[in-house]
Amino acid sequence: MFESAELGHRIKKSVYEEEVPPLRAALLNAQLGLAKSASFPVIILIGGLDGAGRGATVNLLNAWMDPRHIQTHGMGEPSDEELDRPMMWRFWRALPPKGKIGVFLGSWYTWPILNRVSGITKAADLDQSLERARRLEKMLVDEGALLIKFWLHLSKDKQKKRLKTLEKDPLTRWRVTERDWQRLKDYDKFHEVHESVIRHTSTAEAPWLIVEGEDDNYRNLTVGKVILKAIEDRLSREQTSPAAILAPPLLPPIDNLHILKTMDMGQKLDKDEYRVRLEKYQGRLNALTRHPKFRYMSVITVFEGNDAAGKGSSIRRVTGALDARCYQVIPIAAPTEEERAQPYLWRFWRHLPRKGRVAIFDRSWYGRVLVERIEGYCGEADWMRAYGEINDFEAQMVRHSLLVVKFWLAITKDEQLRRFEDRQQTPFKSFKITEEDWRNREKWQLYEQAVCDMVDRTSTLLAPWTLVEANDKNFARIKVLKTLCGMIEAKLKDLEKQGVDYLDKPKKRN
Amino acid sequence: MFESAELGHRIKKSVYEEEVPPLRAALLNAQLGLAKSASFPVIILIGGLDGAGRGATVNLLNAWMDPRHIQTHGMGEPSDEELDRPMMWRFWRALPPKGKIGVFLGSWYTWPILNRVSGITKAADLDQSLERARRLEKMLVDEGALLIKFWLHLSKDKQKKRLKTLEKDPLTRWRVTERDWQRLKDYDKFHEVHESVIRHTSTAEAPWLIVEGEDDNYRNLTVGKVILKAIEDRLSREQTSPAAILAPPLLPPIDNLHILKTMDMGQKLDKDEYRVRLEKYQGRLNALTRHPKFRYMSVITVFEGNDAAGKGSSIRRVTGALDARCYQVIPIAAPTEEERAQPYLWRFWRHLPRKGRVAIFDRSWYGRVLVERIEGYCGEADWMRAYGEINDFEAQMVRHSLLVVKFWLAITKDEQLRRFEDRQQTPFKSFKITEEDWRNREKWQLYEQAVCDMVDRTSTLLAPWTLVEANDKNFARIKVLKTLCGMIEAKLKDLEKQGVDYLDKPKKRN
Repeated sequence: MFESAELGHRIKKSVYEEEVPPLRAALLNAQLGLAKSASFPVIILIGGLDGAGRGATVNLLNAWMDPRHIQTHGMGEPSDEELDRPMMWRFWRALPPKGKIGVFLGSWYTWPILNRVSGITKAADLDQSLERARRLEKMLVDEGALLIKFWLHLSKDKQKKRLKTLEKDPLTRWRVTERDWQRLKDYDKFHEVHESVIRHTSTAEAPWLIVEGEDDNYRNLTVGKVILKAIEDRLSREQTSPAAILAPPLLPPIDNLHILKTMDMGQKLDKDEYRVRLEKYQGRLNALTRHPKFRYMSVITVFEGNDAAGKGSSIRRVTGALDARCYQVIPIAAPTEEERAQPYLWRFWRHLPRKGRVAIFDRSWYGRVLVERIEGYCGEADWMRAYGEINDFEAQMVRHSLLVVKFWLAITKDEQLRRFEDRQQTPFKSFKITEEDWRNREKWQLYEQAVCDMVDRTSTLLAPWTLVEANDKNFARIKVLKTLCGMIEAKLKDLEKQGVDYLDKPKKRN
Repeated sequence: MFESAELGHRIKKSVYEEEVPPLRAALLNAQLGLAKSASFPVIILIGGLDGAGRGATVNLLNAWMDPRHIQTHGMGEPSDEELDRPMMWRFWRALPPKGKIGVFLGSWYTWPILNRVSGITKAADLDQSLERARRLEKMLVDEGALLIKFWLHLSKDKQKKRLKTLEKDPLTRWRVTERDWQRLKDYDKFHEVHESVIRHTSTAEAPWLIVEGEDDNYRNLTVGKVILKAIEDRLSREQTSPAAILAPPLLPPIDNLHILKTMDMGQKLDKDEYRVRLEKYQGRLNALTRHPKFRYMSVITVFEGNDAAGKGSSIRRVTGALDARCYQVIPIAAPTEEERAQPYLWRFWRHLPRKGRVAIFDRSWYGRVLVERIEGYCGEADWMRAYGEINDFEAQMVRHSLLVVKFWLAITKDEQLRRFEDRQQTPFKSFKITEEDWRNREKWQLYEQAVCDMVDRTSTLLAPWTLVEANDKNFARIKVLKTLCGMIEAKLKDLEKQGVDYLDKPKKRN
């Protein structure tokens, strides 16, 4: 794997000095074209060995490129903010938007490698981390990102020579630490893990590019030329047609039966009983969020449902039970300009709560497989892959002790009509009903199909859907509260049984 | 995940009887179109629970479809032949060619699931198996296969009811065994594993289609309609344009240095010394293949190299040391018609040797990233993904105690010219030199680049490349023999240290 990067590549100073000025001009030009078109982001990973010039490469890119359109992320020790969320959160928040370049020194590979070399994790754990990395990268590429992964390499001999040279010179001696010598001792261990990482994650869409790190001139020119060609190629590419659908069709509805039909929509709760239970479950919910273990978990609730199904009022019954400092309601509408410049899931990642908090999504990432599917805002290939991406997303939350509670609030078509008409006739409610609501109503059957597919494909043991019969608002609100309490209780019990520690969570170093 | 498949779907007899005749006619018609176009194979997996109608579904397909173009594979206990080779070998040999349908009852999921439920493997092991399944399926789809994965499901209650009903009737009582009741007891365990399998392997290109298994009419109509629509859709699809290249370019050769240049091509061995060493290493090789542990391993050697580099004569020095019953030389030329109707790697899988044997490939699967890349026989996206597919292929061999030894025999351009001219002038050698050899020679530099990329991307710790300086034939032959002996010795030592057992190898049941 490292054969070509141990040959002693060199570029003479005279050649270098001749080639750099036109390269820099071309890079700036390409960067301008990228910023103008703003059609895709460029994500550059700088991985590899200590001393192979990772830092120098980042500095070089910052020196050569227009600083307005490039951003570098050191990704050293995670902050407390970051440790409180799934491992990938820190990368999501740092992703460059379309038209910009993001350079990552240290990436989603760093900690899995270190944990494996230090023996904290097993080979199978590393494989799981690499699988997650591959799925993340596939998603980024599917979302249009240009992903360039450089691996800077230095042979063991060269590594040793480098340390000795630095140490001999009183001016550079400070740069060699005890840790450097330790790393050299561990060279073979690292080598084996690196080889496995590169083999498993050099995919057709995002291969590792292994660059010999010894000679600055060679390294700089190579990195610069690859980036230039990659951006130019992509900019000159014709707008690609939507991806071909390779999958067989989902199940056709050949009888008239589906999960929504099997709900008992007549369920009701009278006012008195409702008041008693509301009191009971709100009290219980409040107590649960004050449980000493609650600060080791967090709760994500998702509210989806038919228009006028009562999402807002159910949410208010939940928030009514919570300390205002511990929750956040996130209403999801059309994405902002900033959000449109990012992969689809970005606008949800940004709202993931810290430990000990509750986030309540009023509509959610499921828009992709509901409204976007039906209105054609995204292609079939996009919403088809979204089921897997969403499951990955939620699995990451669950791995990090986030509890994911998902409600589908269902009303019948007749009940919806009644509520729509009521809204139109009640002055203080009429703002809630728009032309779009009536248009959506015409697509009732398409939505039903989409909801069934969504539940079938994303109701997992890790993050199940709860279908809520919402023709009667009292019944629906109590079912929501009761379900939420039950799931938090179960999660707290889990936390009491097992320690809270996760394999791919970065371990703090001393 | 199983919500829609636990609703009690039913199709009335009258409806069924009305719908089946036109469906069967349409299926036969689609099958005919498929056979005529012969542009893709259809691979149907029938997974799911005992008693959910897997066998009945297979019987149904066999009854409805034209038996000339469909083949069913039971995939029960592996044969000794199959146990002697990597787990996937039995599936590769059963893959349908283009234009045909292959139905698999039991698949690459069966044993990983059983081993996990019975506790032989851990969750992380299952994840590794699923990752391999996903990569295999991606490769099949990339190669053009239409992959349809049915999962037949039955709820726990229905399962229980079914067994009780069968047991009550003296005529059907024999169908219920102790094992069936045991499976029912393990229902929840299976359920959890199945859920994880479906979640991890429902990809955008090959999602699981979960079908409720209780009612025969419903199940039959659903399966039939999905297959019909999937084949019709694919047949009607326009020839797709080649896949877009999403990856950045490979490293440009910015200096004049590459791995082939660093080889010391002047190395020689005089005749006397050659004879002594030939004797020595051929003797050692022979002894190694008679080692008692050798029957637990097998050897795959790959010979690639420049035209006229002496592959054939090196191979003869290897085979000269071996018992004729224990080796096979596989010369790779243009693929046969049968081979062209299969995924690229199929024609190599079919030649994998049993344990205790040696297979010698005179040219190999590396043709994809050498001649096919350079002559444009396949698209850039195809040879780019081939590196990963080849690494997966070889990793499977290594996991199954196959030793993979790969030689690149290199000669200089001058030496090649000398040999070409010699061949032309020597009557008994002139058959060995063709117009094509001269044409290839003109592309010397392109081949150099392709060889360097190949070594960089496929020389792994599991299956490294050995570069052989072959300007001097004596030197080359001895280097080949010595390397081969050394690697077999190391492998035998490994086998002595560790037991020979692999996690995803099917375990024999009692």
